[in-house]
Amino acid sequence: MFDKLKQECYEANLLLPQLGLVIYTFGNVSCIDREANAVAIKPSGVDYNKLTPDDIAVVDLDGRQLDGRLRPSSDTNTHLELYRNWAGIGGIVHTHSTWAVAWAQAERDVPLYGTTHADHLAEDVPCTAPMADERIQNDYETETGRQILDRFRAGGLDPMEVPMALVAGHGPFTWGKSAAKAVYHARILEELCRMALLTEQINPDVKRLKQSLIDKHYFRKHGKNAYYGQK
Amino acid sequence: MFDKLKQECYEANLLLPQLGLVIYTFGNVSCIDREANAVAIKPSGVDYNKLTPDDIAVVDLDGRQLDGRLRPSSDTNTHLELYRNWAGIGGIVHTHSTWAVAWAQAERDVPLYGTTHADHLAEDVPCTAPMADERIQNDYETETGRQILDRFRAGGLDPMEVPMALVAGHGPFTWGKSAAKAVYHARILEELCRMALLTEQINPDVKRLKQSLIDKHYFRKHGKNAYYGQK
Amino acid sequence: MFDKLKQECYEANLLLPQLGLVIYTFGNVSCIDREANAVAIKPSGVDYNKLTPDDIAVVDLDGRQLDGRLRPSSDTNTHLELYRNWAGIGGIVHTHSTWAVAWAQAERDVPLYGTTHADHLAEDVPCTAPMADERIQNDYETETGRQILDRFRAGGLDPMEVPMALVAGHGPFTWGKSAAKAVYHARILEELCRMALLTEQINPDVKRLKQSLIDKHYFRKHGKNAYYGQK
Amino acid sequence: MFDKLKQECYEANLLLPQLGLVIYTFGNVSCIDREANAVAIKPSGVDYNKLTPDDIAVVDLDGRQLDGRLRPSSDTNTHLELYRNWAGIGGIVHTHSTWAVAWAQAERDVPLYGTTHADHLAEDVPCTAPMADERIQNDYETETGRQILDRFRAGGLDPMEVPMALVAGHGPFTWGKSAAKAVYHARILEELCRMALLTEQINPDVKRLKQSLIDKHYFRKHGKNAYYGQK
Repeated sequence: MFDKLKQECYEANLLLPQLGLVIYTFGNVSCIDREANAVAIKPSGVDYNKLTPDDIAVVDLDGRQLDGRLRPSSDTNTHLELYRNWAGIGGIVHTHSTWAVAWAQAERDVPLYGTTHADHLAEDVPCTAPMADERIQNDYETETGRQILDRFRAGGLDPMEVPMALVAGHGPFTWGKSAAKAVYHARILEELCRMALLTEQINPDVKRLKQSLIDKHYFRKHGKNAYYGQK
Repeated sequence: MFDKLKQECYEANLLLPQLGLVIYTFGNVSCIDREANAVAIKPSGVDYNKLTPDDIAVVDLDGRQLDGRLRPSSDTNTHLELYRNWAGIGGIVHTHSTWAVAWAQAERDVPLYGTTHADHLAEDVPCTAPMADERIQNDYETETGRQILDRFRAGGLDPMEVPMALVAGHGPFTWGKSAAKAVYHARILEELCRMALLTEQINPDVKRLKQSLIDKHYFRKHGKNAYYGQK
Repeated sequence: MFDKLKQECYEANLLLPQLGLVIYTFGNVSCIDREANAVAIKPSGVDYNKLTPDDIAVVDLDGRQLDGRLRPSSDTNTHLELYRNWAGIGGIVHTHSTWAVAWAQAERDVPLYGTTHADHLAEDVPCTAPMADERIQNDYETETGRQILDRFRAGGLDPMEVPMALVAGHGPFTWGKSAAKAVYHARILEELCRMALLTEQINPDVKRLKQSLIDKHYFRKHGKNAYYGQK
Repeated sequence: MFDKLKQECYEANLLLPQLGLVIYTFGNVSCIDREANAVAIKPSGVDYNKLTPDDIAVVDLDGRQLDGRLRPSSDTNTHLELYRNWAGIGGIVHTHSTWAVAWAQAERDVPLYGTTHADHLAEDVPCTAPMADERIQNDYETETGRQILDRFRAGGLDPMEVPMALVAGHGPFTWGKSAAKAVYHARILEELCRMALLTEQINPDVKRLKQSLIDKHYFRKHGKNAYYGQK
């Protein structure tokens, strides 16, 4: 019944080790079938090289398991909190990729220093506030999603335009219209994080890219006047 | 009709991911047939692992498409501006390779710190000025080429001797007598950028290589008294 | 007689070059059969790509060779000192992996900056004191083990909860219930060391992760209330 | 006649790209047959993936070509100068490996910070002085060898105990009893250079390893009381 959704989830999960974004069981990808109210997600603690499509867990938006023998990722509630609040997203990725984790641990937004960044989003990559103790004691994984939602509300950010965030002290979450697109954003974020640190090391006084150039590159690839790619 | 040119362009484009200079659809290679007034270039937004020789777009020096079903790279006008002004070059490469982008974002010329650099060019790698707003609003990609031309004129640089530049806030462009030679310079530039940052980290007071040693190494490989390589 | 133990040791040793943790003959893995009082360990100075299960040396806890034609690793006495004092561990790994060695040479504990670290241990990674001259002149390798034991006693650390240490000026030792688990900890340590330096470079004023978040992540994966992984 | 020597040279040259120490035609390996007064060396400017044993050039200690259709490496005179002065060495390697070049460009000796270094040499890795202009104008490659010899004499260093050097502003030379051993030292040097910079970044106040520990590790692997490896 959920074969297609599980297959999409499975294939996107396999991309993470192939792209060098995870080692061992770090990280997970989910995708949602909005009509069926079903979310497919990696099972908890299973190695990528042993994973099969049949191992993928399927839950509804309240976390009730619909399919699969294995327990879903311990991060499932973070994914569900984002799916419940952002109707436009179809896939979510969480990793512990090295450079994105370093920025998350440093608790800094990743400044927009160049066109590689502006080609993908027109804002600094947002980093959440550290989580308050009472939230940690509560439903921690759901609260992790809320930290991201809070940051987007506070910054007036649109998740369809800013497809990535860093959770302070933890690591990156990215999303997109599909699981594959969310993985794409995870790989891009890792590269932006690496470029940004190197840039600051080469020039500690570096300034953010000028707004006119940010807009030029972002709208070259996004929106109704985009002219990048094939029609 | 343009089969040979398209094949050259195709093969040079494939080198970019093989050399670790691009991920996804970042970057593009072009080459020119001066007699036919034809420039072959990667189509816009096409993955390298799906690219075929037949996908390569061919345009004339004014950008009119001569061959190919797909739209040429959105950076085509930058390539054309360089071909129009520099009669000696036969191929051009643009990438978002990590270390070269970091220097471009830092808006710094790459200092000539050693013989690895001097073996290839006798000047610091030039970085353009940031682009003025009115240029960004104009024909942006053509203006990107003009930023490079301006920098070479201001610095009295010869593109046949300095086969690479950084566009401020953006990334590297390199060129050469052929597409393959332009790719070679893209790989060399990435290495020079990496070595230069590491050098400054090891010794923040490092000085530029002495001029006599720059000349020795550059002319060992270039000009009529070169004695590197086979006859 | 020791075939199974030697095979376990052999397979775990092969993981080290596969995981990028060793070059040439750097590093070694051992494992212990507590009932047989037998420790299997890599022979000294043998290349990983020439190693066979039969090459593995087997010694008792006092270092007397029980099996194998080849001399055991010159670090054997360090392993034995840890096995003698820590009854719960089943495997030990020593490497010269790049980032862990750098922290060991810097003689610093690796601060707990994020959840990637807290998922594996709830303490900073301990670095030993530099070894006193008289200890170096004595049975050096046994004393290396004692430096680790001293550090754990001084810090009130439990080796079953903190499965790794840095020996000042030297490099990492890790352990676990099995040789494979010890190798896993060696790979994790290398990643934690890399993330920690990058974090400090991005934010020199970074603070240790808050204790409530350390506890949350550590006990999500460890102890009776753990809910990570499959039952 | 020189088949065996050329084969040894060929195989050692191929190791350089395999070990990630060279790209394109950077670098070269030579080896010497002392009885035949013959030095085999990589031909100048030939790609490693096109190299055949038959391409290897053979010269005598005065640089006269004894065998091979191709011109020897432009660095041949540096190799010959070292062979003429150091009777104990059998192979020499020159590369432009990234981290070693960075230290050479920074014109700093690589400090002995840990046992990985002391396992191979008991001294800081020496970096030569910058070359004087009149030497550059003279027989540059022979003078490069002399810069190394001068540095060893000034520092009272024994090339059989210190099998590597950095040439200021240029890059690394390493040597050993055979070509393969010289390549081994090139790979070790690259790792020592990387570890040393990371160490200084983790702890800018790091001190050199204590002498007693340097001696312990060096003599564990070298000299008549060595106990590392198999008998």
